[in-house]
Amino acid sequence: MSVSRPHDTVTIGDYQTVRDETEQLAAPLSPEDQLVQSMVDASPTKWHRAHTTWFFETFVLQPHFRGYREFDPDFGYLYNSYYESVGEQHPRHERGLISRPSLDQIAAYREHVDEVMAIAIDQGLTDIPAVADVVLLGLHHEQQHQELILSDIKHVLSKNPTLPSYRQGEPAPSYPSPRLDWLNIEGGLVEVGHVGSGFRFDNEAPRHRVFLEPFRLADRAVTNGDWLDFMADDGYHEARHWLSEGWALINNQGWEAPLYWDASRSGWQVFTLHGRVRVNPSEPVCHVSYFEADAFARWAGARLPTEGEWEHASNTLSLEGNFANRDVLNPLPVPETSTGLPRQMFGDVWEWTSSSYSPYPGFRTAEGAVGEYNGKFMSNQYVLRGGSFATPAGHIRRTYRNFYPSRARWMFGGLRLASDPR
Amino acid sequence: MSVSRPHDTVTIGDYQTVRDETEQLAAPLSPEDQLVQSMVDASPTKWHRAHTTWFFETFVLQPHFRGYREFDPDFGYLYNSYYESVGEQHPRHERGLISRPSLDQIAAYREHVDEVMAIAIDQGLTDIPAVADVVLLGLHHEQQHQELILSDIKHVLSKNPTLPSYRQGEPAPSYPSPRLDWLNIEGGLVEVGHVGSGFRFDNEAPRHRVFLEPFRLADRAVTNGDWLDFMADDGYHEARHWLSEGWALINNQGWEAPLYWDASRSGWQVFTLHGRVRVNPSEPVCHVSYFEADAFARWAGARLPTEGEWEHASNTLSLEGNFANRDVLNPLPVPETSTGLPRQMFGDVWEWTSSSYSPYPGFRTAEGAVGEYNGKFMSNQYVLRGGSFATPAGHIRRTYRNFYPSRARWMFGGLRLASDPR
Amino acid sequence: MSVSRPHDTVTIGDYQTVRDETEQLAAPLSPEDQLVQSMVDASPTKWHRAHTTWFFETFVLQPHFRGYREFDPDFGYLYNSYYESVGEQHPRHERGLISRPSLDQIAAYREHVDEVMAIAIDQGLTDIPAVADVVLLGLHHEQQHQELILSDIKHVLSKNPTLPSYRQGEPAPSYPSPRLDWLNIEGGLVEVGHVGSGFRFDNEAPRHRVFLEPFRLADRAVTNGDWLDFMADDGYHEARHWLSEGWALINNQGWEAPLYWDASRSGWQVFTLHGRVRVNPSEPVCHVSYFEADAFARWAGARLPTEGEWEHASNTLSLEGNFANRDVLNPLPVPETSTGLPRQMFGDVWEWTSSSYSPYPGFRTAEGAVGEYNGKFMSNQYVLRGGSFATPAGHIRRTYRNFYPSRARWMFGGLRLASDPR
Amino acid sequence: MSVSRPHDTVTIGDYQTVRDETEQLAAPLSPEDQLVQSMVDASPTKWHRAHTTWFFETFVLQPHFRGYREFDPDFGYLYNSYYESVGEQHPRHERGLISRPSLDQIAAYREHVDEVMAIAIDQGLTDIPAVADVVLLGLHHEQQHQELILSDIKHVLSKNPTLPSYRQGEPAPSYPSPRLDWLNIEGGLVEVGHVGSGFRFDNEAPRHRVFLEPFRLADRAVTNGDWLDFMADDGYHEARHWLSEGWALINNQGWEAPLYWDASRSGWQVFTLHGRVRVNPSEPVCHVSYFEADAFARWAGARLPTEGEWEHASNTLSLEGNFANRDVLNPLPVPETSTGLPRQMFGDVWEWTSSSYSPYPGFRTAEGAVGEYNGKFMSNQYVLRGGSFATPAGHIRRTYRNFYPSRARWMFGGLRLASDPR
Repeated sequence: MSVSRPHDTVTIGDYQTVRDETEQLAAPLSPEDQLVQSMVDASPTKWHRAHTTWFFETFVLQPHFRGYREFDPDFGYLYNSYYESVGEQHPRHERGLISRPSLDQIAAYREHVDEVMAIAIDQGLTDIPAVADVVLLGLHHEQQHQELILSDIKHVLSKNPTLPSYRQGEPAPSYPSPRLDWLNIEGGLVEVGHVGSGFRFDNEAPRHRVFLEPFRLADRAVTNGDWLDFMADDGYHEARHWLSEGWALINNQGWEAPLYWDASRSGWQVFTLHGRVRVNPSEPVCHVSYFEADAFARWAGARLPTEGEWEHASNTLSLEGNFANRDVLNPLPVPETSTGLPRQMFGDVWEWTSSSYSPYPGFRTAEGAVGEYNGKFMSNQYVLRGGSFATPAGHIRRTYRNFYPSRARWMFGGLRLASDPR
Repeated sequence: MSVSRPHDTVTIGDYQTVRDETEQLAAPLSPEDQLVQSMVDASPTKWHRAHTTWFFETFVLQPHFRGYREFDPDFGYLYNSYYESVGEQHPRHERGLISRPSLDQIAAYREHVDEVMAIAIDQGLTDIPAVADVVLLGLHHEQQHQELILSDIKHVLSKNPTLPSYRQGEPAPSYPSPRLDWLNIEGGLVEVGHVGSGFRFDNEAPRHRVFLEPFRLADRAVTNGDWLDFMADDGYHEARHWLSEGWALINNQGWEAPLYWDASRSGWQVFTLHGRVRVNPSEPVCHVSYFEADAFARWAGARLPTEGEWEHASNTLSLEGNFANRDVLNPLPVPETSTGLPRQMFGDVWEWTSSSYSPYPGFRTAEGAVGEYNGKFMSNQYVLRGGSFATPAGHIRRTYRNFYPSRARWMFGGLRLASDPR
Repeated sequence: MSVSRPHDTVTIGDYQTVRDETEQLAAPLSPEDQLVQSMVDASPTKWHRAHTTWFFETFVLQPHFRGYREFDPDFGYLYNSYYESVGEQHPRHERGLISRPSLDQIAAYREHVDEVMAIAIDQGLTDIPAVADVVLLGLHHEQQHQELILSDIKHVLSKNPTLPSYRQGEPAPSYPSPRLDWLNIEGGLVEVGHVGSGFRFDNEAPRHRVFLEPFRLADRAVTNGDWLDFMADDGYHEARHWLSEGWALINNQGWEAPLYWDASRSGWQVFTLHGRVRVNPSEPVCHVSYFEADAFARWAGARLPTEGEWEHASNTLSLEGNFANRDVLNPLPVPETSTGLPRQMFGDVWEWTSSSYSPYPGFRTAEGAVGEYNGKFMSNQYVLRGGSFATPAGHIRRTYRNFYPSRARWMFGGLRLASDPR
Repeated sequence: MSVSRPHDTVTIGDYQTVRDETEQLAAPLSPEDQLVQSMVDASPTKWHRAHTTWFFETFVLQPHFRGYREFDPDFGYLYNSYYESVGEQHPRHERGLISRPSLDQIAAYREHVDEVMAIAIDQGLTDIPAVADVVLLGLHHEQQHQELILSDIKHVLSKNPTLPSYRQGEPAPSYPSPRLDWLNIEGGLVEVGHVGSGFRFDNEAPRHRVFLEPFRLADRAVTNGDWLDFMADDGYHEARHWLSEGWALINNQGWEAPLYWDASRSGWQVFTLHGRVRVNPSEPVCHVSYFEADAFARWAGARLPTEGEWEHASNTLSLEGNFANRDVLNPLPVPETSTGLPRQMFGDVWEWTSSSYSPYPGFRTAEGAVGEYNGKFMSNQYVLRGGSFATPAGHIRRTYRNFYPSRARWMFGGLRLASDPR
């Protein structure tokens, strides 16, 4: 999908494309697979399918389409994620218990809402700018959940001792980690944040000035090969590399490698959406927490970039990369030849920044329930940038701010180094 | 089924009957329903179906049927419940994550094992007494899991805000709690424990002497009507009725009524296998913990019987009652006319005794893995007697010792009062 | 003290003797030592001193001594242990936070109550049998807390990395574990429980008949030497010896030896009230949980005795042994020569029995708050018999029932084996 | 103390003044009071006295004073707070168990180190700039612990049901909350961070440029009167004011008012270092978490200032205020007359900013163990500015960055509102 907002509207095609992509992601999964919740953070596929539908029902059809009757009155409780102003919510950690409504009923729910939405759009509902805005938000919301479906089902499958694959496929060729070049970037008083009339989340605005000291940015992400060096150098066992919280965490949890890695007799292996494979040194490392990313950077004599630095450095790049539409479903190896520009800033893996997730100067939340979309999560989380192999291609922006707690690592997060000039 | 052991053998019919009963219990449940684990104690239906099959594969076919190849090598890990001597086990609290193998594969597993078992029995495998013993144990084991399927799925469905029914049906007529008469029982040096050649679990033996003081036993179980009186008299709020542990527990948990009860504007309701209905005062109370049973008894100026008292008092009764084969799936109201004999000692609800679960004098565990069946659970649990509406009819004995921790209440447990003579 | 009840009275001397013994136990400890609570189960010495005083104030002086005014109205809340009927209690786990009232004030509290008690006894208060009963109970209660002062302060000191000694002293000579002989005991219908007019706790009555099969009892306790054999034979690593709960516990907790043992280069050492010393093979093992005692017995091809067996076997022995008045404050080595009688059944270490702590037939609690003394703890605990080196000499009886949860091991608990006849 | 660094040295007087101030703070407290640890975050006074001494022993005397022998080899383990590079540490949550060494020994430890330090300074040790730097750091470190002594002992005393006072004293006169005026501040590209040669912590450097949009700042802190309005307007019960984490926190914890407040029949009361008093509407509110500060600001239609805004706005103010040297030990009421300048920015209460605690551009940690001082805590904490009534007067700077987790509220934290221009 490529959703833009030049005419303040959304077509049936826009809507149906996004909705279909969700169904395609769920297609390889049985009703049983789609029910499992393997940890509190990771919701069942079935829940994602229902919740994204509930969004359109609750924020578009109920308030704006006269005569609409909700599909099932229980769903408002079951599939509300966190909108306090809409009412009570089913407890998040019990999403895996909801065997009824059945998956068939969820499919019927999706069809029902899609049919009414098609009628509504056909009748011109999205010609009303305020409604078009909410529909657009719903589509971008659904794209976020598409990526969550992949990160969550990966966790589900990883908890199964038989380690099933989500997708059959050949891994990329394995080769050594390519060389890293440093790009010098000038800084100064620059502008960041979204500009223009296209869609953006509220947290990307307003555009504003920040002052950047000159800095250097690595022309590629940190790779598995780099990470193996860090591990070989006792990176996980030297307190001096670590934030205090991170050191406590890795010792409590016994972390000695990224999530999904396990040591076999023939070397490190990693569980991917294509099953368990050997760790490929040339791929960007994935599934590391903020604490690990930060410790790696300190070990390497570098640091993470701020989100302002990251965004500014991406200015000249096109929004292309290994996104979900390429259907690779894994980070691709770093290209062996450098170009003088940052490689793979978009796609492959989200890149941790050192920036705490906080409101931009002048940030305003929307009125009403959709105002709960972003602002209320602005504490104790860190910003990631650039999208991953699981992000829908039309969903990303250079100003896009993803955010996770510093201990999270089940999403597709890696890193790129920055440093002060020599 | 009526499994006996006069000829030291088991027929294909015996085997198939028990196995079919399991499938009938699972029949109303979707693959999604059968996957859910709603708490650590309550296993998925699917797991029960696989685990009971694993029992025959592991303890009958693998050691005793030459050339048998296991259905799937992963199953030994996934479906071993707690047999340490057989190897590592999948963590109990993660049974709800195992979406693969699919339910179809579990059905195929059952069919596979059943086919080979049929061949094996046909070829005379169960003519070997030691093998017949294990097969019999496996069938009684499966019957235990049949009851667990019902108690566990009830818990699963109760966690669903839509409160689905396991079974459609009419509740029994509601009438006041009938009068309670006390039966005087003489005591003395009596024998308890299993006698004869029929099947019994190891924990029912050896038969031995215990000395009983004279005692009185109520001729009926405590009813919901009695329980409402206890609640109305602030039973849940007066520390003096309670064991210290129980008092802490109900205050921590906020318990103010039996499990599955909830107060509505029109009075107390209870979730049953037939959905939510009004509490019927004439039914034996069900889903109370040992602590609640004990507190009720103290409030009533009585006590729980010991398991010796219970067994001795049951001596003249036939093993008849409201068991699973009647398909009522709920306790029946107490009959209104008393008979001078204890009513409903068998079936309806398990009855808590005051006896800690401990070995009988001279108790011996079997050699090998099946020795882990009972003995290793003999700590910090209390004995219940008599079976419930969910117990297979041929499964119960008057010497049968069921056991649960004192805080458990999701199984079908109630109580009957005893007291010292006036 | 030797408290008896022939004349239904208590003298000032009886009272003052017990009260002084408490003070002598506290004497080596600073105000800081006496404040520490090292775990929820182990109360500060200061709290013990105040709580035992509160007992006399609350149950003797306030109800029975006209005109008595409480020392400080806050103390009723601060130093009530668990008497629900007396009012709210300060949370148990926060006893170590109560720096004020200071220890001086607690000493003043004790003096105040003692002075009034002396006046009251002098004026004949304890000539009233009901009051004498409560005073006697208060003295036995205080003796229980004397033993707790020692077990609790041992835990406190053990948590200090400098491992301070409670008492200076020479350890007993170390020699190998002496041989164990089995005593054959006939059983039959025997009587157990307290008889006679002397003091006893309510849980020792009524005297009643139990039927015992013939059994064998070891003529000595299990020693450290035996325990080292168990450990050397992988006793802590073989699931088949263990109750299921015990196996989970030792694996969760990482237990590989009794509490206070630690492995040094020169062998196993143990922290005692005299500091850290080498493990002496000839001493009765101490600080093992019920689970460990039970597992050891199973490993040894034996079992724990029931409390009925233990009491019956002790019938011919005098109540002598290594009690607190000998001031050894450690188990003494097993005497090397056997006598045909059980050695060290009284004193040295409490001996775990296999009996769950439950009411004797016809058990009645006292009216009022002192009825909370014993009965409400009769769940999920196991009985120990015989007293320890920390038990006041006049405090023990052959019918005395001590009780602890099956995982507890900070009190002075060991074991003696029993078995069925050959 | 007024420690400056023009000549790169520290005098004996400087040293002794700071050390004495610690002793004066501890003087009203008994050895028992000084031992208590009422929660993991709050260390015993005794521990603070020992740990600050350990700092000088470990980082000054051991490396730099030839022939120095440590006072006691156990202390390195017991009184190391978190310096991983110095070795293992005693577990933080067990600091209240360390009754030995006694408080007398801690006093002797302080005297010993102070005597040697006096000799060392006299012999010119602090003429070496690198050593002088560490001594200065040690003195500022000790001043931080002086404030902690007060915040921690307040928590200790508050857990005592008798609510003892740390200090006798009269509360300030109570009057209504004075009016609030907004100051307009221009912003632009400004400099923040420490400048000059005086002492500063590493986290205050380097001085650097930040771009500030124009903003408004309240000329006074939020008062108790304001907070009562927030509470009366259901501030603690309306989800829309709260960050999502904060909303979960206050509901889990049942927070309905600042820490130490409790509702009495005659209105809200608050526990202070002078005991329990009525809430005074004109005082700056104290003991609120970041989440509460943020929610209040949103309710008020405002926001918290960033730390850059705060520092910039403080530029013209002198470093004067209600600090510990005034010995008020409570926030003072807001002066009734406004001055066109911010009132009480320094002293009274620390003021939460919206800024996550993170390194300034170009931040470098020191080499060696003292490099663990600040940098490793730069995650998931928020910055507070300005000092409190418990901060030593010479300790504060306008660039001073205090930091706490967003849920902490036992330190002396309040807030001042900011907003975007109209």
